[in-house]
Amino acid sequence: MARRPGKNFLFVPGPTNVPERVLRAMMVSQEDHRSPIFPELTKPLFEGLKKVFKTKEGQTFIFPSSGTGGWEAALANTLAPGDKVLTARFGQFSHLWTDMAQRLGLDVQIQEEEWGTGAHEEKIEEALVADKAHEIKAVMVVHNETATGVTSNIGAIRKAIDAAGHPALLFVDSVSGLGSIDFRFDEWKVDLAVSGSQKGLMLPAGLGFVCVSQKALGVRKNAGLNKVYFDFQDHINTNPGGYFPYTPATNLLHGLRESLACIEEEGLEQIFHRHHVLAEATRKAVDAWGLKLCAKSPRWHSDTVSAILAPEGIDAAKIIRHAYDRYNLALGAGLSKVAGRVFRIGHIGDLNELMLLGAIAGAEMSMLDNGVKIKAGSGVGAAQDYLRDNPIEKQAETPKAA
Amino acid sequence: MARRPGKNFLFVPGPTNVPERVLRAMMVSQEDHRSPIFPELTKPLFEGLKKVFKTKEGQTFIFPSSGTGGWEAALANTLAPGDKVLTARFGQFSHLWTDMAQRLGLDVQIQEEEWGTGAHEEKIEEALVADKAHEIKAVMVVHNETATGVTSNIGAIRKAIDAAGHPALLFVDSVSGLGSIDFRFDEWKVDLAVSGSQKGLMLPAGLGFVCVSQKALGVRKNAGLNKVYFDFQDHINTNPGGYFPYTPATNLLHGLRESLACIEEEGLEQIFHRHHVLAEATRKAVDAWGLKLCAKSPRWHSDTVSAILAPEGIDAAKIIRHAYDRYNLALGAGLSKVAGRVFRIGHIGDLNELMLLGAIAGAEMSMLDNGVKIKAGSGVGAAQDYLRDNPIEKQAETPKAA
Amino acid sequence: MARRPGKNFLFVPGPTNVPERVLRAMMVSQEDHRSPIFPELTKPLFEGLKKVFKTKEGQTFIFPSSGTGGWEAALANTLAPGDKVLTARFGQFSHLWTDMAQRLGLDVQIQEEEWGTGAHEEKIEEALVADKAHEIKAVMVVHNETATGVTSNIGAIRKAIDAAGHPALLFVDSVSGLGSIDFRFDEWKVDLAVSGSQKGLMLPAGLGFVCVSQKALGVRKNAGLNKVYFDFQDHINTNPGGYFPYTPATNLLHGLRESLACIEEEGLEQIFHRHHVLAEATRKAVDAWGLKLCAKSPRWHSDTVSAILAPEGIDAAKIIRHAYDRYNLALGAGLSKVAGRVFRIGHIGDLNELMLLGAIAGAEMSMLDNGVKIKAGSGVGAAQDYLRDNPIEKQAETPKAA
Amino acid sequence: MARRPGKNFLFVPGPTNVPERVLRAMMVSQEDHRSPIFPELTKPLFEGLKKVFKTKEGQTFIFPSSGTGGWEAALANTLAPGDKVLTARFGQFSHLWTDMAQRLGLDVQIQEEEWGTGAHEEKIEEALVADKAHEIKAVMVVHNETATGVTSNIGAIRKAIDAAGHPALLFVDSVSGLGSIDFRFDEWKVDLAVSGSQKGLMLPAGLGFVCVSQKALGVRKNAGLNKVYFDFQDHINTNPGGYFPYTPATNLLHGLRESLACIEEEGLEQIFHRHHVLAEATRKAVDAWGLKLCAKSPRWHSDTVSAILAPEGIDAAKIIRHAYDRYNLALGAGLSKVAGRVFRIGHIGDLNELMLLGAIAGAEMSMLDNGVKIKAGSGVGAAQDYLRDNPIEKQAETPKAA
Repeated sequence: MARRPGKNFLFVPGPTNVPERVLRAMMVSQEDHRSPIFPELTKPLFEGLKKVFKTKEGQTFIFPSSGTGGWEAALANTLAPGDKVLTARFGQFSHLWTDMAQRLGLDVQIQEEEWGTGAHEEKIEEALVADKAHEIKAVMVVHNETATGVTSNIGAIRKAIDAAGHPALLFVDSVSGLGSIDFRFDEWKVDLAVSGSQKGLMLPAGLGFVCVSQKALGVRKNAGLNKVYFDFQDHINTNPGGYFPYTPATNLLHGLRESLACIEEEGLEQIFHRHHVLAEATRKAVDAWGLKLCAKSPRWHSDTVSAILAPEGIDAAKIIRHAYDRYNLALGAGLSKVAGRVFRIGHIGDLNELMLLGAIAGAEMSMLDNGVKIKAGSGVGAAQDYLRDNPIEKQAETPKAA
Repeated sequence: MARRPGKNFLFVPGPTNVPERVLRAMMVSQEDHRSPIFPELTKPLFEGLKKVFKTKEGQTFIFPSSGTGGWEAALANTLAPGDKVLTARFGQFSHLWTDMAQRLGLDVQIQEEEWGTGAHEEKIEEALVADKAHEIKAVMVVHNETATGVTSNIGAIRKAIDAAGHPALLFVDSVSGLGSIDFRFDEWKVDLAVSGSQKGLMLPAGLGFVCVSQKALGVRKNAGLNKVYFDFQDHINTNPGGYFPYTPATNLLHGLRESLACIEEEGLEQIFHRHHVLAEATRKAVDAWGLKLCAKSPRWHSDTVSAILAPEGIDAAKIIRHAYDRYNLALGAGLSKVAGRVFRIGHIGDLNELMLLGAIAGAEMSMLDNGVKIKAGSGVGAAQDYLRDNPIEKQAETPKAA
Repeated sequence: MARRPGKNFLFVPGPTNVPERVLRAMMVSQEDHRSPIFPELTKPLFEGLKKVFKTKEGQTFIFPSSGTGGWEAALANTLAPGDKVLTARFGQFSHLWTDMAQRLGLDVQIQEEEWGTGAHEEKIEEALVADKAHEIKAVMVVHNETATGVTSNIGAIRKAIDAAGHPALLFVDSVSGLGSIDFRFDEWKVDLAVSGSQKGLMLPAGLGFVCVSQKALGVRKNAGLNKVYFDFQDHINTNPGGYFPYTPATNLLHGLRESLACIEEEGLEQIFHRHHVLAEATRKAVDAWGLKLCAKSPRWHSDTVSAILAPEGIDAAKIIRHAYDRYNLALGAGLSKVAGRVFRIGHIGDLNELMLLGAIAGAEMSMLDNGVKIKAGSGVGAAQDYLRDNPIEKQAETPKAA
Repeated sequence: MARRPGKNFLFVPGPTNVPERVLRAMMVSQEDHRSPIFPELTKPLFEGLKKVFKTKEGQTFIFPSSGTGGWEAALANTLAPGDKVLTARFGQFSHLWTDMAQRLGLDVQIQEEEWGTGAHEEKIEEALVADKAHEIKAVMVVHNETATGVTSNIGAIRKAIDAAGHPALLFVDSVSGLGSIDFRFDEWKVDLAVSGSQKGLMLPAGLGFVCVSQKALGVRKNAGLNKVYFDFQDHINTNPGGYFPYTPATNLLHGLRESLACIEEEGLEQIFHRHHVLAEATRKAVDAWGLKLCAKSPRWHSDTVSAILAPEGIDAAKIIRHAYDRYNLALGAGLSKVAGRVFRIGHIGDLNELMLLGAIAGAEMSMLDNGVKIKAGSGVGAAQDYLRDNPIEKQAETPKAA
């Protein structure tokens, strides 16, 4: 392909834009991962991740894997074949985790939800109440469904489980949520949370993160799923000293140290605020275009990705492809059930206003080029008006006039 | 300063955005600049620069210096104290080169032009015709005045010199032109052209480039200005073998190799086309805002930078500072006579549509925040409409509907 | 820790020294791994790996994992719990793979070999002949036992299997062999070979490679080990288009492209030659010191790592630790049974003569500082003498005198 | 050229080995060098350089240039054509600076010294005493003559000037000394010191550093040499605010920040100690080979570079070329008068024991291949013995046995 001038606008909901300093931090020569100084790098990483998960009780694990590996680690360490789990399915990623559970031999009780909605805490409570025999070992929920731009309320789900008086473990996929929208491992009594490096943690793909409660660690003796690579125990044996049971992805660990420093410097609450403001600005643009989100109502709005329904008769896939070919803008595709019907703008990771406005402008032009009846600049203008009133820096007063 | 999320939007007219692959190419360990293989790196650079200058006759020089060093090399190698030169002054950079000539002891005949216009070929012709004794040794022209966004017509100036039948050398500063707008060293019979690394060549600052005609090389014996560092002769002695008279800035030379490859791949004419389209899009935004350029008429429009006049009563410096502080957008300041009156958008280097639209959106917001009466999205929309009809890729048909 | 001047001498047998250009190639911004151009990066990688494995028939898989993940992928895709496998154990890594097989529920028939020897083809033949019922589904062999510096003869093992007329599959761990010593997937009719990125492929850790014969792919329907992350089928479904079933480790893939280019440029046979010469030079040093290798005889000598027995009464761990603390030299530790008895010099990856001589000098000094009775310079001198006569560039004549 | 495996051993006396973290620090996107935050980068650099020069009174200047530019800045800012200066010439670099002075029109009184010796303080004193009219405006001395491996005693020269009661300024080239061997700007009352980035400061080439006393700054009004690019005044006008009179080499400035941090962390005195130990080890190797240094006696020994005399009948150039071609070792060539007679080992910059021992081993092999009668390992062994007894870390006790 011929050289394309300028930067690619990466607005898929992951991999996300990685800060240059994180990329730089990874440019290191190899080292002995059994050296006496290696733990100086690694030990703070486990602690840093705990802060991001908001946990003091949980234990964090780092796998050389994608987030999918984290999913498998979660299920395979804690459940035995035939064990019953409850899950809600309402998008491609909740589908895939459900599918993995089935392939691993679990007995999966699925609550099918309309795509555009999420996990309904009231239905979860119902199901748990109905499970008098406490056969359900775990409730699996996708915190942020990347395919449809839907966020479920994990805190409410915790309350539902408690209200049902049910001992099931709470397993959460927060791959596209952690580090971008609020996640409270301890407060929500999550038992097992899964994430990956290439989303809110602003790293290249290649690391899977799992945070596990003491309760979940305790049930491992009953687990009957075969595994070695993802076995928590091998990590429990070596991580406290700063080592790993096999060669870790050292360059990504250097990147992780830097991305954790970035998160510390900006501040988690500030990061959540920024994601909310950029998401709201995106939604203002969608409104201005007269279009609808896939997410059915504000209850389900995701602050890390917006899935936008193309107007009737317009192929969303063409909008995406044209945006890429003509304007060097990578939008997220509609997956599975919503293929061709939605295009997605990821507003997650190391982003600011002008990056987002460039992407909105690009989406606008691609829609126009594909026959969508909107006015050039309309979405951008609506987003601008919102952004002028709502600084991405929380603490700052709006410095409107100088 | 606290960590700022996302990318800085760099829209000063240099240093420009450097392609990531160029930055990467510079990340090399040090090497012996006298090694037998060093010329494999360096010799093609002189040839590659010749293509960018569009010369077969000229000789190219590479100095570890800024463009200012190139200015001094040009004057000090070819002129003696007291020599008369003719120059036009119409902005901060034509002023500074003029000033250097005076400080070097030259007798500078200055044509003062209104800022917002450029070198008037008709007046140059007049002056040369009047110089019966041929005392004027050189005509110094700034091709692209970065301070006011004004491009002078070097081809027309060459014709004026020829029409006057005057033997003066033609010296051109194309620091912010070369590699971005058309420059024809041989066709325009330029005798000495100066440029730098941090503009159209898409490199970090640190290299000065000078291209010299055989005619200009021939007059060196008469030059009486003291210099060693910038002496062409020391380079003439060593460059053909691929070496330099002193330690060259090797990492920047590696970057230069890569930036020349980028230019070759995209194609010079395509690059000029892209700069023109992005410049036009910027001017459409300015029109939509109801504002005026500093450049007085299309005759003077620069395709690498637009200097925009702030409305009466608005301090352009505040627009610039606020854009930087609030939106992480670096705009060019008004310099000297136009300080506080203009802000500049550089549209030069490794840029594409969405980067530019993000910057226009940012300028728009900063103006709004500073009380300029415009409509959010108006400039962006006008630029979008233009860009949809005018692809930055010349050869491509407009693929409007998919 | 205070800043240590100069470079660390990394002489563990993996992670190995990564060429600067590979590190540079990985310094890329993130991209959409579902973009239309992503396959331009990925498709040639599968083909490039096939060349390194020397296969036309086999299919290559790339996992975001360590080599341990490759081990699990190999076993879990092709075997069912209770299946019988034959393995030889003679070092820490053959032990760990054996252990994994047991943990996965396989029935492992272990041939215990003296550490310092390897897999004995004659004993494998015997065991297969004895297995009249053909209960043994696979023979698992570690090509290069990193812990003891022992290479087994895979070609001979293939002949043994054939001689026994046994249908068992041949599974080979070539984690620390592939790309450094000869490996012939097709010629040796290997059914499943496992490797990782951080050894002969000169990349950071984070990728596991598996090469699978059509025969091995065919038995997957019988496999009953639960897995999703490492399931070949999901990759078979997506890899041909240039995609992956989940987010791949994109930056490492960029590095892989560059490391494959390095291998192509140097040439596999030349690389094997170079490793042999550097290994021989190391062994000359060991001879000069009057020490012994852990490898019992030349039959077992590894060309990628030498495990050296410390003299009686000397703690090898102290030699290693002191080398690291005082001379910034990372040697490989003795593992498990040989802990404290051996120190290892890895001579694998992107190495040349002077790097190796620096390391030999360092080992020498650390031994001297720890009371080993050798002469300073003795090992280095012996290695130098050998290296002068044996260029690491195969094709070159020995250019002794100029 | 075909790919060469492993690292190049860079042992020319500059450019020197750059720490990876410094290289990394330079990998930054471009920025506006007139932004409000740019001074956060630049202001500490001037202060940091002062510490390296050991000055509180002097003012430091940073030019985008090589060290040669620094030479010119020094002379051109402070002297007028026809001014008399006293200099000692005893190697290629003292020759070149002398030559520059002559080309700039100065009246240069040259003390020719035997190559292998340096500036003789007693002869300088004599000359100054003889200059009753105080016509000599400045004494120019090369602190460390890179061509011959000779260090002159600047403190003694200061005393000689004082003893003569002469008002001449003291100008020192410490290009290959600063940051590696002791330099005391204030204590030695140096008036003008010149250095460059690619030696002890462990940066790529491209920056020239000049440190100027208040006394030297005061004489500028009398200077009559034409210059603009190197004019101190333009820098004096802008540097205090953190800015520069023209575009600075920003990426190198980022590198400078990191290299100053490296120097701070290791400590200047520790760095001097390390250079001394590595130099001594090199000299032990030379002794063991039975060869002689170009430096005539220990009085002149340089701790940053050793120029070694090849035995009679051996062409040193062949040793150098063969070392490069066969062993990937870059040695310094003999320049001018000593071309073909010496080869040089630079032991300057970011170096440690094993790097040096690798280089000594390489020099040894190249000498052997070229017919020099030495024993393989002899130089290495002698250096090892010395290094074992003399840790490069000053504070550390010799941790001989563990």
